[in-house]
Amino acid sequence: MSEMHVYRFGPNMTDGKADMKNLLGGKGANLAEMSLLDIPVPPGCTITTEVCTFFNENGKTYPKELDGQLKSALKDVEDRVGAVFGDSENPLLLSVRSGARTSMPGMMETVLNVGLNDFTRDGLIAQSEDPRFVYDAQRRLIQMYSDVVMEKASGIEPEEGMGIRNQLEHELEKMKEQEGVTEDTDLSATNLKDLVEIYKGKVMEVLKKPFPEDPWEQLWGAISAVFHSWDGKRAKAYRKIENIPEEWGTAVNVQAMVYGNLGDDSATGVAFTRNPATGENNFYGEWLEKAQGEDVVAGIRTPNPLNEICRTDHSGDLPSLEQSAPHLYKELDTIRLNLEDHYSDMMDIEFTIQSGKLWMLQCRIGKRNGPAAIRMASEMVKENRIDGKTAIGRVTPSQLDELLHPIVDPDVEKSTALLAKGLPAGPGGATGKAVFTAQDAVDWAAKGETVVLVREETNPEDVEGMRASVAILTSRGGMTSHAALVARGWGMCCVVGAGEMKVDSIKKEFTVGDRTIKEGDPITLNGTAGKVYEGELPLIETDISSDYLTHFLGLCDEVRKLKVRTNAETPSDAKRALDFGAEGIGLFRIEHMFYGEGSEEPLFHLQEMIMANSQEERRVALDSLFPFMKNDIKETLRAMKGLPVTIRLMDPPLHEFIPHDAKRQKKLANALGINTEELERRSEALKESNPMMGHRGVRLGITHPEITEMQARAILEAAAELTAENVKTFPEIMIPLTGMETEYNHQEKIVREVAAKIEGLDNYMVGTMMEIPRASLVANRIAETAEFFSFGTNDLTQMTFGFSRDDTGGFMPAYLELELLPEDPFASLDEGVCELVKMGIEKGRNTKPNLKVGICGEHGGEPKSVHFCHNVGMDYVSCSPFRVPIARLSAAQAVLNDEK
Amino acid sequence: MSEMHVYRFGPNMTDGKADMKNLLGGKGANLAEMSLLDIPVPPGCTITTEVCTFFNENGKTYPKELDGQLKSALKDVEDRVGAVFGDSENPLLLSVRSGARTSMPGMMETVLNVGLNDFTRDGLIAQSEDPRFVYDAQRRLIQMYSDVVMEKASGIEPEEGMGIRNQLEHELEKMKEQEGVTEDTDLSATNLKDLVEIYKGKVMEVLKKPFPEDPWEQLWGAISAVFHSWDGKRAKAYRKIENIPEEWGTAVNVQAMVYGNLGDDSATGVAFTRNPATGENNFYGEWLEKAQGEDVVAGIRTPNPLNEICRTDHSGDLPSLEQSAPHLYKELDTIRLNLEDHYSDMMDIEFTIQSGKLWMLQCRIGKRNGPAAIRMASEMVKENRIDGKTAIGRVTPSQLDELLHPIVDPDVEKSTALLAKGLPAGPGGATGKAVFTAQDAVDWAAKGETVVLVREETNPEDVEGMRASVAILTSRGGMTSHAALVARGWGMCCVVGAGEMKVDSIKKEFTVGDRTIKEGDPITLNGTAGKVYEGELPLIETDISSDYLTHFLGLCDEVRKLKVRTNAETPSDAKRALDFGAEGIGLFRIEHMFYGEGSEEPLFHLQEMIMANSQEERRVALDSLFPFMKNDIKETLRAMKGLPVTIRLMDPPLHEFIPHDAKRQKKLANALGINTEELERRSEALKESNPMMGHRGVRLGITHPEITEMQARAILEAAAELTAENVKTFPEIMIPLTGMETEYNHQEKIVREVAAKIEGLDNYMVGTMMEIPRASLVANRIAETAEFFSFGTNDLTQMTFGFSRDDTGGFMPAYLELELLPEDPFASLDEGVCELVKMGIEKGRNTKPNLKVGICGEHGGEPKSVHFCHNVGMDYVSCSPFRVPIARLSAAQAVLNDEK
Repeated sequence: MSEMHVYRFGPNMTDGKADMKNLLGGKGANLAEMSLLDIPVPPGCTITTEVCTFFNENGKTYPKELDGQLKSALKDVEDRVGAVFGDSENPLLLSVRSGARTSMPGMMETVLNVGLNDFTRDGLIAQSEDPRFVYDAQRRLIQMYSDVVMEKASGIEPEEGMGIRNQLEHELEKMKEQEGVTEDTDLSATNLKDLVEIYKGKVMEVLKKPFPEDPWEQLWGAISAVFHSWDGKRAKAYRKIENIPEEWGTAVNVQAMVYGNLGDDSATGVAFTRNPATGENNFYGEWLEKAQGEDVVAGIRTPNPLNEICRTDHSGDLPSLEQSAPHLYKELDTIRLNLEDHYSDMMDIEFTIQSGKLWMLQCRIGKRNGPAAIRMASEMVKENRIDGKTAIGRVTPSQLDELLHPIVDPDVEKSTALLAKGLPAGPGGATGKAVFTAQDAVDWAAKGETVVLVREETNPEDVEGMRASVAILTSRGGMTSHAALVARGWGMCCVVGAGEMKVDSIKKEFTVGDRTIKEGDPITLNGTAGKVYEGELPLIETDISSDYLTHFLGLCDEVRKLKVRTNAETPSDAKRALDFGAEGIGLFRIEHMFYGEGSEEPLFHLQEMIMANSQEERRVALDSLFPFMKNDIKETLRAMKGLPVTIRLMDPPLHEFIPHDAKRQKKLANALGINTEELERRSEALKESNPMMGHRGVRLGITHPEITEMQARAILEAAAELTAENVKTFPEIMIPLTGMETEYNHQEKIVREVAAKIEGLDNYMVGTMMEIPRASLVANRIAETAEFFSFGTNDLTQMTFGFSRDDTGGFMPAYLELELLPEDPFASLDEGVCELVKMGIEKGRNTKPNLKVGICGEHGGEPKSVHFCHNVGMDYVSCSPFRVPIARLSAAQAVLNDEK
Repeated sequence: MSEMHVYRFGPNMTDGKADMKNLLGGKGANLAEMSLLDIPVPPGCTITTEVCTFFNENGKTYPKELDGQLKSALKDVEDRVGAVFGDSENPLLLSVRSGARTSMPGMMETVLNVGLNDFTRDGLIAQSEDPRFVYDAQRRLIQMYSDVVMEKASGIEPEEGMGIRNQLEHELEKMKEQEGVTEDTDLSATNLKDLVEIYKGKVMEVLKKPFPEDPWEQLWGAISAVFHSWDGKRAKAYRKIENIPEEWGTAVNVQAMVYGNLGDDSATGVAFTRNPATGENNFYGEWLEKAQGEDVVAGIRTPNPLNEICRTDHSGDLPSLEQSAPHLYKELDTIRLNLEDHYSDMMDIEFTIQSGKLWMLQCRIGKRNGPAAIRMASEMVKENRIDGKTAIGRVTPSQLDELLHPIVDPDVEKSTALLAKGLPAGPGGATGKAVFTAQDAVDWAAKGETVVLVREETNPEDVEGMRASVAILTSRGGMTSHAALVARGWGMCCVVGAGEMKVDSIKKEFTVGDRTIKEGDPITLNGTAGKVYEGELPLIETDISSDYLTHFLGLCDEVRKLKVRTNAETPSDAKRALDFGAEGIGLFRIEHMFYGEGSEEPLFHLQEMIMANSQEERRVALDSLFPFMKNDIKETLRAMKGLPVTIRLMDPPLHEFIPHDAKRQKKLANALGINTEELERRSEALKESNPMMGHRGVRLGITHPEITEMQARAILEAAAELTAENVKTFPEIMIPLTGMETEYNHQEKIVREVAAKIEGLDNYMVGTMMEIPRASLVANRIAETAEFFSFGTNDLTQMTFGFSRDDTGGFMPAYLELELLPEDPFASLDEGVCELVKMGIEKGRNTKPNLKVGICGEHGGEPKSVHFCHNVGMDYVSCSPFRVPIARLSAAQAVLNDEK
């Protein structure tokens, strides 16, 4: 820990800079950077994140040097502002805000107007000549401070609804009622002055302590409340979701107050240097006259548009800053361009106008949704602001995923009556049952329901419920409201500020005019357009062929080393995957033809084969099956035009295919010339205690070589026939579930013998699926004959853990809850499984240096797993068609990681 | 390949010696060695095993030097014998015998009297003055040669019963019938002379080729027949069972004929320098006057006892050699002592007396059964012939296993009427259903039947059927008959030569007097006493506390480094294991108390616990269960007197314990205050698709920490109470199914918390069962907290292969048949699994160099696996009580292996 705990910022006295985020937090570092750029920032100082760590590790105490350093830094603030902290004539007021390395919106505390008491109040009234404003500031301080410092940071846990914050809010409402007004701003100075006294009394009554009048006591209380809040329940939950390390800590920024609510020529606003929802290169923001910043973010008042270009239907004829104060707008726009030039990225800024003077309170890299991230990345490359690799680093896989989200079918949407309209805060379409509390969202989702969380507005307590929902709908708040921020971060469908809606969370319903939507009623959201519909509208996949995306993924393709294939089994899937950029099929499950449409007849022949009592009977059934299989394979090979297609031989236990209904059983028995009792007996004989580890995969091919032979013939004859039609093909025959080289060799020999009898074969390969732990252990020997390895990490994960995926329900939730596992190993590759994959590749390549290696488990489209596949030197990953773009991006980012 | 293909032996001209077995085969090397010891050996020469390999790899041709070398060696034989091969006046006759490195009784061919034709015959008649003997020799040559060389080596496969051997045998029987005699020896010279002509005609008729008269053609034919027979079906099957490599090959010994059937002062015999069935230090053997060696081995005539000490009831008053020819017996006894002094081991010898002159035809290390092997090893150490380590090397684990075989309950046996009496050819008792052909034995055994193979006499074609049986019973033959040799080698229960029995293999029955035993009727054999009983007699375990065994295992204990523990769960098992030499319990499965006798009440409480709907209900059930569990553990800890006892916490899926009968279900539902439908619903919820990989082991302890807590309390309180009684204890608490260090740590914390609350605890440990592949991969991290690892190789094998042990029936037989696996990996540790075990130990000891490591799977008592455990540096193996002596021996032999 360094000995410097306090860093100054503001005009002429700046100790920090942008790249000191770890020490100063994001807000503090950027305030310093803006100061260095001569952007007007109210002076202040940052207490480092190291102090936060010290505080929480040392029984809530501070390093001994802090007091002196803080006093000295505040002296410099006083000098620059020309006011004195605690002075009754010319008082300096301070804001105390958290600022961690990474933004944690709404998770930590802020206290404004610190230093205001009955004495400094009077000085300020004299100075500002606006008693209403000053009383309002004082009642805000009491309201905030008593909640954040006196109650929360002291660990008091009041009963539901009985917190000091609610009780003071109640007093405010009472006062408004008594005065017959609806808006806070309609209260007079006298009302507010009375309210200050009422507040103080209530604080004493509820918290059994007087509200502190000593400015320094206020300041230290506010600082400690911020540090306390790092350790709070909400913040911890958020960090868990966002994978933010506990040890980072937050900094505290102590800054001279500026007021957007001082008078008619005061205002406050939030803006983005480009549109964070679409990526368009337009200055985009919201502002409110006579308001503090919190008012915009909290979504209590519907904000005004920053300029004409970002005016929407929703903005109505609210005044834009561009109209209301063109010179200030121009000054802000200049800062905007200055910041973009400096940071080469889209910035999120907060500003306040105090009595006609513009101040910047914050600047940070702006959060953006997926479409915006990709458009900005693409356009900034074209503007020569950034290079391709930087662009790749700017888009997260989950942002890209947003583009791949379904949307509401536009044809259906066109003809469906709108229920309500709000702001388009999160992309894509979603449909689900309405629920009205976060807890209900969690509970319903746990029961397998798809839910849309409907709230007046969301707050940080709702995070878990938001996570459990497919979409969020609020009746209040703007694009920078809590719901909008969270949904954007998660790439989640979200509509906010649908003001026509009246949400009643007690009755669990909302109404729009005469329509009432009750808990459990289906609703549909178009998060891209901010539209809400009653009922369940059909969703369709988005068209991801935008020029920006094509350009962006092209940048990825230039960088990445991993090939990206897809798991597909039909010509239409194959074609779609090609559109998504797939470079082959990594997993074609031959048994897919026995599922779904058109499978009736081949399935029947398969059943005949399974129930056959002799090799001859089996061969007859296989012969009937053969033409179906050959044709099925042929059409997919044709669609892939010579790209490699890995076809996995039959894998599941045969018992899976046996008919269960009496009619089909009868038909099958008749075809076999046996009675149903005999059929039942044969079926019973196929049952297994642990079918996952039973007679399946290569084991079927060993005991029934004629099945392998038929499959090899179907694949290779299909390929040869296409070659004769001048269609290029590259089938790769994959033997599943291999654990020993002897198994593989046994099967490979059958395939080669079949191949030797087929004329006009183009290239083909034979290899194996690596999904049994033992295969990795003897990979050197398997690689002596196998031409490729494809890691089947679903089964490999099952066997490595001894977890049956179908049976983890009883304990996996507990494992994740207790953090025994960082995440579900079936979602993201586990390190133990990675160890086996690595070993398999190393041993395999020891034998055959050019061994082709890929992955075809579901992990092949999961970003962290793709990084692993890159690091471990695989040739390709394979994933479902919709994950192909994600894999392309992740593979490129893996290369970037290498270069770090 | 060396250029010397032929090695001479016999008086004064010996090229080889005993340690050249690889090149000369066992017989050839030992003939050379005996020659060097001045023991009378008929001169001859050995064609090397390398020639066999050359022959079978080069299209049945010979190295070019062979012809010259063989001629030269035979010249030396002629010189020493004073006779000339093929000479019509003074002809030399030769025997041609196989001789591989290791004995393969009856598997390969022999041709005697080579060189005899119509011309040499007349010379021999003139010389021997015994035309009957010479004609008999000639008809034997034709009979043997036409079968072995002209038919078998030519690959002719006649129909069943239509082989030349049978057809000539038929002619012999016809001749005997025609002459009204019953014994071959009653045929006159004229009869035999006629038979020679009849034989020649039959050979021409059946094989369409004349019998070769050219002595050299005969010799080369005989040599090639031996080499052919190495490649024969029977020999291959035998090698597969005995794990003899194909590439060893056999040598061929060409030796001057001596005749045990030349006249009244001729004889032949087989002997052991000590009794091979009991190990007693007595000269033991059998002989026949006027016979060739084959007559003794084939068991066609019941042989005479060699001396008075080995006379049995069975020998009746047949003359012993000791009585009949005391000087020759004395000469033989001197050779016996000479050989034992020289070889320091029990030798198996063959001798022939020709016209009063003793010749040794063979000497080799004698096969012995288990009890004999152990007695000899022990006694030879006491006689200072060999040291302890040599003794350890002299006993195979399977020989030791024989001592551990069950025997017929002596009390029951005493009061049971004997059905028949034969020779005690294989140890122990056995009971099974009578079958009468080798094929039936195989078929019945495949259906899961336990069978005893009953034959008049066995032959090499029966080997597979013998293997499939639990015991063998023959009505003819002696202790050196085929059945006896094979059974002794396999340590199998066997009774031979039960002459009262009439075996009819066509009708599939045998009769003794008026009793008839049909196929499928149960019979019981006492192979140690040679007794046969009707019906199924109870078997009991043998008393293995003989002084020889105790001494022998003591020798093992001095050498071995591995500790040997046992898997046991009751005080009586624990005590038995201590008697067997166990040094602790390596696996005490806590759930055993819910199986078997006395489990009714604890099982009911377990069921209550499983079906409980809340943690409170579960705690109530656990409290009821607690006293049972504590007491159960306490008594076993008490029996083990401070030796380590590894107690594994509950492992199986809970669904296993749920009652299936309506009455118990009703009772359980009542106790829980629910109806049976609800019970059914809860039971259904516990069902799993793959219970082996489901909610069990540590996973139960994670989701239900109160179960772990109760078990820890039961174990540690039991230990503390014993400490208070001044009884030493050393419980090792084992967490099963661990795959992650986080799981282990979670459970360990519970155990430590329980321990902290218990006063007066002696030493205890907490560790884990290593049975999930992932555990080996992260063993370094598990070892940070775990105090010991115990490899559960049953489950580890399941997961490593992805083989559900319950479901391998569908493919494992095919895997073994196709040799995809060298053996069942659940019987002997697989190399892939070994790799994981090794990795686990290395990683674990990297973290904690003194980490205690053991094995508690069933492999812990399997010799090859024990060797692996030794090599990989485990501290102990643990196995079932009856395998403990095997483990002690194997552990000592592993040390011997190290020293090689």
